[in-house]
Amino acid sequence: MSDRDHSKREGSGRILRAPENFVDLTLQQDIERHGLDAKRRSFLRRSFAGAVATTAAAATAPLAFAQSEGDEMILKPRPWATSLGQPVAARPYGLPSEHEKNLQRRQSPGLTRVAASSVAFTPLQGLFGIITPNGLHFERHHQGWHDIDPAQHRLMLNGLMRAPRVYTMDDLMRLPSVSRMHFIECGANTGMEWGNVAVPTVQYTHGMLSCCEFTGVPLSVLLEDCGADLKRGKYLLAEGGDGSSMTRTIPLEMADEIIVAWAMNGEMLRPENGYPLRLVVPGVQGVSWVKWLRRLEVGDQPWNTKDETVHYVDMMPDGMHRQYTSIQECKSVITTPSGGQTLIGKGFYNISGLAWSGRGKVKRVDVSVDGGRSWRTARLEGPVLSKCLTRFNLDWVWDGSPAILQSRAIDETGYVQPRTNELRAIRGTRSIYHNNAIQSWRVAPSGEVDNVQLG
Amino acid sequence: MSDRDHSKREGSGRILRAPENFVDLTLQQDIERHGLDAKRRSFLRRSFAGAVATTAAAATAPLAFAQSEGDEMILKPRPWATSLGQPVAARPYGLPSEHEKNLQRRQSPGLTRVAASSVAFTPLQGLFGIITPNGLHFERHHQGWHDIDPAQHRLMLNGLMRAPRVYTMDDLMRLPSVSRMHFIECGANTGMEWGNVAVPTVQYTHGMLSCCEFTGVPLSVLLEDCGADLKRGKYLLAEGGDGSSMTRTIPLEMADEIIVAWAMNGEMLRPENGYPLRLVVPGVQGVSWVKWLRRLEVGDQPWNTKDETVHYVDMMPDGMHRQYTSIQECKSVITTPSGGQTLIGKGFYNISGLAWSGRGKVKRVDVSVDGGRSWRTARLEGPVLSKCLTRFNLDWVWDGSPAILQSRAIDETGYVQPRTNELRAIRGTRSIYHNNAIQSWRVAPSGEVDNVQLG
Repeated sequence: MSDRDHSKREGSGRILRAPENFVDLTLQQDIERHGLDAKRRSFLRRSFAGAVATTAAAATAPLAFAQSEGDEMILKPRPWATSLGQPVAARPYGLPSEHEKNLQRRQSPGLTRVAASSVAFTPLQGLFGIITPNGLHFERHHQGWHDIDPAQHRLMLNGLMRAPRVYTMDDLMRLPSVSRMHFIECGANTGMEWGNVAVPTVQYTHGMLSCCEFTGVPLSVLLEDCGADLKRGKYLLAEGGDGSSMTRTIPLEMADEIIVAWAMNGEMLRPENGYPLRLVVPGVQGVSWVKWLRRLEVGDQPWNTKDETVHYVDMMPDGMHRQYTSIQECKSVITTPSGGQTLIGKGFYNISGLAWSGRGKVKRVDVSVDGGRSWRTARLEGPVLSKCLTRFNLDWVWDGSPAILQSRAIDETGYVQPRTNELRAIRGTRSIYHNNAIQSWRVAPSGEVDNVQLG
Repeated sequence: MSDRDHSKREGSGRILRAPENFVDLTLQQDIERHGLDAKRRSFLRRSFAGAVATTAAAATAPLAFAQSEGDEMILKPRPWATSLGQPVAARPYGLPSEHEKNLQRRQSPGLTRVAASSVAFTPLQGLFGIITPNGLHFERHHQGWHDIDPAQHRLMLNGLMRAPRVYTMDDLMRLPSVSRMHFIECGANTGMEWGNVAVPTVQYTHGMLSCCEFTGVPLSVLLEDCGADLKRGKYLLAEGGDGSSMTRTIPLEMADEIIVAWAMNGEMLRPENGYPLRLVVPGVQGVSWVKWLRRLEVGDQPWNTKDETVHYVDMMPDGMHRQYTSIQECKSVITTPSGGQTLIGKGFYNISGLAWSGRGKVKRVDVSVDGGRSWRTARLEGPVLSKCLTRFNLDWVWDGSPAILQSRAIDETGYVQPRTNELRAIRGTRSIYHNNAIQSWRVAPSGEVDNVQLG
């Protein structure tokens, strides 16, 4: 495969090819060129013959390519084995490989009128495990992002409290801190699919989802410090420091888990994600994790701000709307194979995906390859943490016939992720927010995978 | 504080200032300019009066600065509240704030003759939680790093096995995968301190230490696939793809936990850390986590390669050396406050640090502020995982008198991190590797923190 081919892929090294901006690029050429297909099938047949069914054609395939490659590797070292490499600290702050440069956050063209009030999606199809690297964390802004000078930033606490107070970053960062891993999902994630719009890739269907280790001071420490009146005070108003007047009401019954955070994945927040301060509200939709946080007010009733009356409400079939529906219910999605990728031939695949619940831990994930007629239980990678992504994996041998891949998560409360039609029966098709239905990916005999709405 | 001041700091927003390359820069100017000191002490006295002792002077300090700042914040919005910000995906792969640009991997000048065979240290003094962001993962190369084309990379398995085999990256990445969080520490970490060299900052004392979520195929899957003879085969030889002929013997009794990994913290490995393939050997010194991994051989005895005979052996007092001492024993270090930082005045601080053990989970961390005469048990942040970093935190009120900060970790086997003299009594002072002694940071009445060897 040439360097040029690599540069077109959304992250190289993937066995399943993801197109760049929906322009397909399969590995079929490579397979034909190198004769890899037969070798792979043969290899995988031997590995997993005991556990899974394979095609008869694969059983007799030769290993010629692999063996000649092996001789070459030993006898003819690659260029990087015979030359001096780059020095340490060549990049004081490191970056991904040049071969991975197409694995990017991407904006969905036309989703909003201006890019300062839009979304850049996380490329879930090319990620592994549960941690989202900070450079690929999704973005959702209401009036664009700023790189705020932390020395100029302040956080005010006011409202129902004995001693309203203003904190500098230095004040906050000497306080007792906690570190917790949590997912963050925009309430509008998978929003296009309320109708019958089958967005082509998992980056665009589910990519308003990320997961980090957050560090900051527990909200409870600040409330105590200011002498908050928690008898009268039942709600918190969180206000962002940008120009969008982004304000959200949060029930104080959630206070025990809320963090006023300055760090994500070990380092200070990124500007696009609220540097130097954001709210972390585990299990709750991302809009409440207010970025560039400048004010927290304690009150005795919800504020009914524009962002919780005009926006972020769920339109119901009868024309009424649900309001303050902030918790992200149990949900899962297969990230590999997923829409826009192309399987490189029959044989073994590791089906991999993510599951999460705003109510606690994921208890189980079932996977179907026949559109929900039968299910197998996937392996969960540990640690399984509350209100955090959980990675699941399942062995699968594709026999070349059409398949429909689905995942169904169950959380520790016993809640089961619904089918699309189950959700629509109650909530209709006119909503934007809180679509946690089962996702279906259709595999064609050609190996091409696309998004299909099954109901 | 001006932007210029910010740019000098190793990561802004820290309450404890770390100097750039040992050039000190304290916050005293800011304190004098803004009168923050009294406010902070007052604030912290109220917060933690019940739990900790404070100075009498702090009790009556006013809050004038904070309140006027508060009015200003509401009445005069900051520039970022009155302007349109940057669009989404302005940076398809995001970067840290400009205000954090001094938080970097740094080379220790003069440590090695050429920078292609040297170390770049992780800036532990400016990090949080347990995850090391990929851009700040430490580097240690033997002949420099390359950005290898994954389509050209191969992994050979050979030796005592029925079917020696060569894998492409595509072959490997369709196999069953696991994701695990583990620390990686160079065996030479804290090596200068075997003698009486008090390296000034925690970046240089302990910065050959990082922690990631790694994803890859379990070694056991590959051994099974190749029909490895595990009756005769007792050892694994791992060989890197660079030009240094880096080879390491690894006992196969460790095989169950070893991962042939392609991803760190959710994305493909970074070139400096072995892209596209490295070995993950939990609990074992970093040199065995062979980068740019190209070969794994199964054998019946250790290979005694140059990297396990000439290098990476522990010189003992009697002139003999210990060999194959690969497991990183239980260790901890306080990262804040630490050498080179300056406390900004008396009052409350969150003492924070990291603990780890190559034998399993950290069970407990004790912290002393009086050079080991008395100890308090720190809070451990969850999840506490095996062979993974654990973050600890402890409340502390500094009364302005000299103090010596130490941490002492105990792992689940009951092993207690030793004092320097306990370690030297057995292992002497001529070693480089495997110094896991207790670290001491001395706090002067001026607030300056430095590295001191107590014994």
